[in-house]
Amino acid sequence: MSIFLSEFLGTAILIAFGNGVVANVVLNKTKGQNSGWIVIAFGWAIAVFAGVFVSAKYSGAHLNPAVTLALVYLKKISWNVVPQYLAGQLLGAMTGSVIVWLSYLQHYKATENAEGILATFATSPAVKSSGHNFLTEFLATFIFVLSILFIVAPSNSLGSLDALPVALLVLGIGLSFGGPTGYAINPVRDLGPRIVHQLLPITHKGGSEWKYALVPILGPLAGGLLAAIVFSFI
Amino acid sequence: MSIFLSEFLGTAILIAFGNGVVANVVLNKTKGQNSGWIVIAFGWAIAVFAGVFVSAKYSGAHLNPAVTLALVYLKKISWNVVPQYLAGQLLGAMTGSVIVWLSYLQHYKATENAEGILATFATSPAVKSSGHNFLTEFLATFIFVLSILFIVAPSNSLGSLDALPVALLVLGIGLSFGGPTGYAINPVRDLGPRIVHQLLPITHKGGSEWKYALVPILGPLAGGLLAAIVFSFI
Amino acid sequence: MSIFLSEFLGTAILIAFGNGVVANVVLNKTKGQNSGWIVIAFGWAIAVFAGVFVSAKYSGAHLNPAVTLALVYLKKISWNVVPQYLAGQLLGAMTGSVIVWLSYLQHYKATENAEGILATFATSPAVKSSGHNFLTEFLATFIFVLSILFIVAPSNSLGSLDALPVALLVLGIGLSFGGPTGYAINPVRDLGPRIVHQLLPITHKGGSEWKYALVPILGPLAGGLLAAIVFSFI
Amino acid sequence: MSIFLSEFLGTAILIAFGNGVVANVVLNKTKGQNSGWIVIAFGWAIAVFAGVFVSAKYSGAHLNPAVTLALVYLKKISWNVVPQYLAGQLLGAMTGSVIVWLSYLQHYKATENAEGILATFATSPAVKSSGHNFLTEFLATFIFVLSILFIVAPSNSLGSLDALPVALLVLGIGLSFGGPTGYAINPVRDLGPRIVHQLLPITHKGGSEWKYALVPILGPLAGGLLAAIVFSFI
Repeated sequence: MSIFLSEFLGTAILIAFGNGVVANVVLNKTKGQNSGWIVIAFGWAIAVFAGVFVSAKYSGAHLNPAVTLALVYLKKISWNVVPQYLAGQLLGAMTGSVIVWLSYLQHYKATENAEGILATFATSPAVKSSGHNFLTEFLATFIFVLSILFIVAPSNSLGSLDALPVALLVLGIGLSFGGPTGYAINPVRDLGPRIVHQLLPITHKGGSEWKYALVPILGPLAGGLLAAIVFSFI
Repeated sequence: MSIFLSEFLGTAILIAFGNGVVANVVLNKTKGQNSGWIVIAFGWAIAVFAGVFVSAKYSGAHLNPAVTLALVYLKKISWNVVPQYLAGQLLGAMTGSVIVWLSYLQHYKATENAEGILATFATSPAVKSSGHNFLTEFLATFIFVLSILFIVAPSNSLGSLDALPVALLVLGIGLSFGGPTGYAINPVRDLGPRIVHQLLPITHKGGSEWKYALVPILGPLAGGLLAAIVFSFI
Repeated sequence: MSIFLSEFLGTAILIAFGNGVVANVVLNKTKGQNSGWIVIAFGWAIAVFAGVFVSAKYSGAHLNPAVTLALVYLKKISWNVVPQYLAGQLLGAMTGSVIVWLSYLQHYKATENAEGILATFATSPAVKSSGHNFLTEFLATFIFVLSILFIVAPSNSLGSLDALPVALLVLGIGLSFGGPTGYAINPVRDLGPRIVHQLLPITHKGGSEWKYALVPILGPLAGGLLAAIVFSFI
Repeated sequence: MSIFLSEFLGTAILIAFGNGVVANVVLNKTKGQNSGWIVIAFGWAIAVFAGVFVSAKYSGAHLNPAVTLALVYLKKISWNVVPQYLAGQLLGAMTGSVIVWLSYLQHYKATENAEGILATFATSPAVKSSGHNFLTEFLATFIFVLSILFIVAPSNSLGSLDALPVALLVLGIGLSFGGPTGYAINPVRDLGPRIVHQLLPITHKGGSEWKYALVPILGPLAGGLLAAIVFSFI
């Protein structure tokens, strides 16, 4: 399996589980409606767990350009495979988002709240303020990627045995740093589904809030890069 | 221990835990009444964990015809043991369901909501629509079985060490894909208890909703088969 | 460390964590008041996890006469050490219960609900009916001990590596079978703290409900014994 | 990496996750507001998990003067490295607390409840009474450190493989003993952020409650010491 296919498959599964749990909690008439933050945080944790398992062997389970960037900086992978990683991640994120839409079709129809519908695709801040929102995404991703680098330190990439520790880290990031921005901590996790939101014909959807789209791209990239720099010093 | 007995025992334990948690959350006067989706999802996760532990050694812990079908397609088991698997699974599911009924006898008496009573046996969709419900079950099982195949790829069946990863997968399926149909993702998980619901003398029960019964059989089988086909390509 | 001391210590820690979480959820003015069944179930799971870790090496971490009885029946331990096991378990359970009382002293003073106070010591059924309550305890313990026997099958007792699987089993028993009787599934878990409830000077306590005391002794012992018998057949 | 730096980094991550989850649950307008005790307890568990992973290799992941004291008493580390441990822990705790403040800046502005703001830094008792509060912290830390000593018994410090068991212990301590005092069980976890609370310019903050500050220092130290003494006897 190529790096592209592996990252595509892993990220598709990541986003299918991850946006799936948001759909279950946010959309109308689901069995898990309003089941709370603990459900969201565990859902995204398992999303990462499954995604890492599927893609660990052939691409080292980055699933996240911020992780790819950190590993490039640390020279654990070379620049020339980066396009494969990014393309797989972005297309995978888009595909995972479509899977969620298909699985919850009737619940999208039953939901009139445009903000809730967007939440099942992309992140949005609890209080809008680009600077503060960037800072939160930056710090959360810095801690996330720094912790991952300690986990994978002996090898050059994530293996199946790292699936559980990384999933638990994501659980913690959601519980502890998800409050202000809904924790993208991953550029394609936000961008891929936002593109899909723009394209899909959903009755009650509103705008795709492109004004915010740069924050969950730049914050995580900056945080991942700083984590790599700090890690290379220690 | 024969394949039949192993699958019987494992599936009985799977359904005892799984329908048990639904009974605790849904029936009247229980200590866990209305304790929410997180309880349901963790209950089913442990159900799979215990079921896999009990049946891993002697039958590879399928516990699910969709898994059996995928492994037959991939030629990891032969057709001639399939009847043993299916018979053990169906009878086990029925037995587990009876154990739940016995454990919650007084709470069935205290519950007048026929829909709630049925929920402690079989699944039902949040919004009825055979096509959409089939699609949800199909996609959820496709993701579930595909992920399992990556977990068990080195061997031919599930071992004890796979109990935790598979349980976590089921936790995620419940959290992320359980919203529309209550995630059967397993034909006997639905059919076995539905038969028991039809047979048992429960005061306030309503109909067994046989009209829906084909969806949680066909959706999971189709999803499992597609997962095997996709897996064999990559 | 002797078997007695090991079981004493392990069971004290089991009950300290286990009844501690009930105190947190049930007593007045605590930070975890009314935090729900998921909190109770995870609290008891970690209780078992910690108890097994502490006592695995020197006594095989029974912590429960129903487990001891099953292992005696299977001839994995001899009758002449049983008194050491039982004495350690009962005195440990009493000690753990005193630790909870000391930790929550002010919250016992702030709680006027006698039923709630008793719940932080012993179990009581949601609907009183000795026969049904026995049946629930019997079935829950049967499934619990049978699953444990599969986990420990290769060795003769529980080791540290079994702490997590057994903790997860207890999580599942609580979620799925705790609804009707509050899942004693362990004679000393109920008897030890009930004795302590009788003895301690708690302002607003009511009776210790000795009429119910036999059910969580006999149900678990019968369930554990049947599990051993079934296990020895297969 | 020096002991100082390792403990600094580990404790910073511990407190960033730990106080982060309190901020998410307690502050206004966050996505996890009022999401309950289960979120708090899991957040702190992952806090310990991440902190141990980061600092296990170079300093044995104490992250807590009560653990350091216990290991000194047991002669697993020597007195002359203690200053490095304590300095790293205290400065790390302060740094972690600043990270939380930066991540939740807008939510501090949106919160007028001074008690809630303090809760995102330091612990405070549900019912004030120094003696009882000391007793709770003492007993909780005694059980916590005693359990840790059994986990690390074969080696002299915590390794990466101990991250999960210790995290689960902290989950249990929070669920079962967090009710009365909010479970400091660690002197720097309380002192470091309390100093930061005193220093930071937060609009709606009240006093830093220095009257209580000694309890979460002395209780955990006494509990850790007793655990070491008991452990050395058995």
